[in-house]
Amino acid sequence: MAGFVRIEILNTGTELLLGHTLNTHGAWLGSELFKLGLRVTRQTSVPDGEAIREALTEAIGRADAVIVTGGLGPTSDDLTREIAADMLGLDLHTDAAALCSLEAFFALRGRPMAEANLKQALIPAGAEVLPNPHGTAPGVFISPTSNARSNCAIFLLPGPPCELYPMYHAEVAPRLRALAGAVTGPVVLELKFTGIGESDFHQGIDAGLAAIPGLEFGYCAHVGEVDLRLIGSASVLARGREIAIAAFARFLVSEDGSSLEESVVRLLTARGWTLATAESCTGGLLASRITDVPGASAVFTHGFVTYSNQAKQELLGVPAADLATHGAVSEPVACRMAAGALTASGADIAVAVTGIAGPDGGTPEKPVGTAWIAVAVRDDAPSAFRVFQPRNRHDFKLAVSQAALDAVRQRLMRDSRSPD
Amino acid sequence: MAGFVRIEILNTGTELLLGHTLNTHGAWLGSELFKLGLRVTRQTSVPDGEAIREALTEAIGRADAVIVTGGLGPTSDDLTREIAADMLGLDLHTDAAALCSLEAFFALRGRPMAEANLKQALIPAGAEVLPNPHGTAPGVFISPTSNARSNCAIFLLPGPPCELYPMYHAEVAPRLRALAGAVTGPVVLELKFTGIGESDFHQGIDAGLAAIPGLEFGYCAHVGEVDLRLIGSASVLARGREIAIAAFARFLVSEDGSSLEESVVRLLTARGWTLATAESCTGGLLASRITDVPGASAVFTHGFVTYSNQAKQELLGVPAADLATHGAVSEPVACRMAAGALTASGADIAVAVTGIAGPDGGTPEKPVGTAWIAVAVRDDAPSAFRVFQPRNRHDFKLAVSQAALDAVRQRLMRDSRSPD
Repeated sequence: MAGFVRIEILNTGTELLLGHTLNTHGAWLGSELFKLGLRVTRQTSVPDGEAIREALTEAIGRADAVIVTGGLGPTSDDLTREIAADMLGLDLHTDAAALCSLEAFFALRGRPMAEANLKQALIPAGAEVLPNPHGTAPGVFISPTSNARSNCAIFLLPGPPCELYPMYHAEVAPRLRALAGAVTGPVVLELKFTGIGESDFHQGIDAGLAAIPGLEFGYCAHVGEVDLRLIGSASVLARGREIAIAAFARFLVSEDGSSLEESVVRLLTARGWTLATAESCTGGLLASRITDVPGASAVFTHGFVTYSNQAKQELLGVPAADLATHGAVSEPVACRMAAGALTASGADIAVAVTGIAGPDGGTPEKPVGTAWIAVAVRDDAPSAFRVFQPRNRHDFKLAVSQAALDAVRQRLMRDSRSPD
Repeated sequence: MAGFVRIEILNTGTELLLGHTLNTHGAWLGSELFKLGLRVTRQTSVPDGEAIREALTEAIGRADAVIVTGGLGPTSDDLTREIAADMLGLDLHTDAAALCSLEAFFALRGRPMAEANLKQALIPAGAEVLPNPHGTAPGVFISPTSNARSNCAIFLLPGPPCELYPMYHAEVAPRLRALAGAVTGPVVLELKFTGIGESDFHQGIDAGLAAIPGLEFGYCAHVGEVDLRLIGSASVLARGREIAIAAFARFLVSEDGSSLEESVVRLLTARGWTLATAESCTGGLLASRITDVPGASAVFTHGFVTYSNQAKQELLGVPAADLATHGAVSEPVACRMAAGALTASGADIAVAVTGIAGPDGGTPEKPVGTAWIAVAVRDDAPSAFRVFQPRNRHDFKLAVSQAALDAVRQRLMRDSRSPD
């Protein structure tokens, strides 16, 4: 079915539009469909109730397949089933098997079935029931051939993730695979880079990538990171990858979607080294990112969050004179912190950060956003560099922790290239 | 402007449809617009590039206002500006002020501006430039009166949250308020609770809330937190609030949207106390959450991330015998950690956490998800309690840090009620 190229997702739920709930269904379905070689061409969210009618009418007019989530529950604002049937001119009838499953669901739990649940066994004429072993709402599949008003494949699925996800795998994916035929889906490669700005990155490789026929590519900038997404055949991806690596190998974090902290933990593990952290302005975020990685305990033992000058002196042995002469946010203090963390922990490598997160505490010489980052390894003098990230408090912490993790990574990679 | 009722959000970005990135912008804008008494009637996501044209054309045909995010960057797949101008028949011209801001942005950071950035100063004729002090992409506002082809107010905003959020507050909200006129929107109240499960919470107050005419309400559960959303007139809200507080005062974190960590920093500040943290399984997350709050440096000085047993002994003076006899995840060790943090820091109150984050390290007696949390204050024996949060590593850290912050909060509140 060559024309099976437009797939839309329609998520229903007032909470999505009030901003109280993040739409995780859209992202989840997008990534699952991509694994089948199918692309979501549009995702729409509408409130519960009648708003579904307009959005669904438009979607089935545009798409080859529409996947609707939510609105199959027993309450009065759950209208997806009723609206879809009405739009397509299909009568609703009670499906005997669906009713039987509903009754079994409640019997298993020793609870009486509320009358409101009865409407969940209503199915549009000609539609297929998609069993729901994890909840009360069966799904509905209206095939392109089962109704006169649309050439679109329509899936109505329940909202709760613990019901939606298994139903997708058991009922939706096989039907989509059959409808779409043998799709040789595009292959995707995501390269993560850090330490380089988006525009410099773009300038360095955009023309080269654009010259590769059949390569689809895009950029996504995060705090302290640029992701390059390449989509195409395997040979086309290899050419795109080569261009990006040739230009920016030094900044490459991963090619498999893994994060900078995962990459650091992997490098430490490979070398058999332990890491200690000494944090002022990042306030524990650096340690927390490292300990997000399973297995971090093998390479990370000590973290010092020395938020006050006194803590820097007591825990890391930073001399009071350095603090008085240079200030807490300075190259000498960053180096002393890293050296102190190395000594106090017995680790093989230590990283220290000290900076001004704001909103207060900035001066003309050291404005909010200034930070010093130092790395120390045994038998070598610590080295430090300055970063300037004038951002809000949250993003400042993230950007500085990113630069600090990258400094550790660079040091580990340098050592692995030329062992000392 | 009585008809100003349909507001749509259009989020652009291929990564949203591939499922690589969760759409947080839609939710954030939805909640911000609601504060103005405005409701989002539809949210749509489309890939980068030409797909924006169809979705934007449809949206401006339906809505009174459309807010577009993304696609204003310097790269070749950023086409929002160009497509909007083309659709509306407006020429693009280089805006002198926007160009000047761009040049200043790079000058401040001591970097040369890439040629690719020049297109970010292109603005459709008749549109207003929305300054972006936090990034390179200025926003664009096309008012209903500034073009012949649409009666819709169109905002083009940058994608990165650190640029989008301030621009919304400074530029978009005031314009929407002016366009919508004196909207007497429903009033909303959000109460945050911690330490109680969603179903117990629901069972305790649902019938009482349902009996209040004109009250719209909903629940939203997060890790270690339940939010109650009340919507209605001021008097109706007061009645709903009373029911919730009467049932669950002890679990109430805030009524103004502020987080648990903000509430803890506020209580510490009011009392003039300092806090120290001693973390094993949360790995720095507890300290990081506290230091997310502006002004934390006045009440937080020392954080110990003692991930190894050796670190617990060296930094916090936990006796080797306790570790050997009871294990690192135990009541005695949690208490020793809290007492040790108090001594080593000179703080007024200390909180310690030790647990098993997984995926490895669990035993039948202490399965993955087990943690002990201890609180110590001077001249008082530390006290500890056990929590069991069998979740993935990320959510486990979050849930345990939530319980630890709540333990500090409860202790500070108890002391403020009956001073010792």
